[in-house]
Amino acid sequence: MSKMSVPADQLFLDDLYVGQTFASAAHKIDEAQIKAFAVQFDPQPFHTDTEAAAGTFFKSLAASGWHTAAITMRLNVEGGLPFASGIIGAGGEINWPNPTRAGDVLHVESEVVEITPSRSKPDRSIVTVVSRTLNQRGDVVQTLKAKLVVFRKPS
Amino acid sequence: MSKMSVPADQLFLDDLYVGQTFASAAHKIDEAQIKAFAVQFDPQPFHTDTEAAAGTFFKSLAASGWHTAAITMRLNVEGGLPFASGIIGAGGEINWPNPTRAGDVLHVESEVVEITPSRSKPDRSIVTVVSRTLNQRGDVVQTLKAKLVVFRKPS
Repeated sequence: MSKMSVPADQLFLDDLYVGQTFASAAHKIDEAQIKAFAVQFDPQPFHTDTEAAAGTFFKSLAASGWHTAAITMRLNVEGGLPFASGIIGAGGEINWPNPTRAGDVLHVESEVVEITPSRSKPDRSIVTVVSRTLNQRGDVVQTLKAKLVVFRKPS
Repeated sequence: MSKMSVPADQLFLDDLYVGQTFASAAHKIDEAQIKAFAVQFDPQPFHTDTEAAAGTFFKSLAASGWHTAAITMRLNVEGGLPFASGIIGAGGEINWPNPTRAGDVLHVESEVVEITPSRSKPDRSIVTVVSRTLNQRGDVVQTLKAKLVVFRKPS
């Protein structure tokens, strides 16, 4: 058994192609999750305080965008992006067109949009993946165009 | 006393200008924080398991990029970006040129690079802020070019 043992449905660079799509499982977010994340990382009234949120830009309690990003990552790590070498991000562009609300059921739909071989390292490429995070009504709460480091299958 | 009471050093849109800079307080990250975040949001061996991380791309335990982003937000909310109407992000570009490691002491240096008045709503602008998150050696662990919604002082 090799040092790197991965499930048979995990993909290496060799298995990826532009236009390939993936979908994650779903995650339901609630008020307690929103407040717990915000208290720790984004302590602003519209993320931590249901009553105070009513008088703000968001009009009611909204999840921190970074919480939406973190949930998206969790969904992708847990099968949304089944990459054998892991999900290693160098960076990307992120947008939050709609807030995530308590009660939302989120899932992620991803597409490979570009594969750029590394100039110096033949064992890897930069794979650009667009991940859209949607709620149960189909509203997009986040788009992330991420540059990921993906490795070939070890020979 | 007005409904929105803010500390005197909090800034409204009218107080901002291109080239303005800010610096946050510091935050020390440790192994326990890195693993706790990763177990919840980015459960990959290089973020959750000190021994397993040695055999990966990261060579030793590294924080999730989303953890670095979340700490950056906390530092900015707690004074790094003293905006009276809050830090409300529409999106941005994020990059992680170096990993965040256990023991790193992070702080954030920010600069206003663009102010674009809203076409439809005269009470606000989109303010583009570049936030660089640095460790104790001056290595940049994250750059974030964020588009923020910033409001004028209520009249």
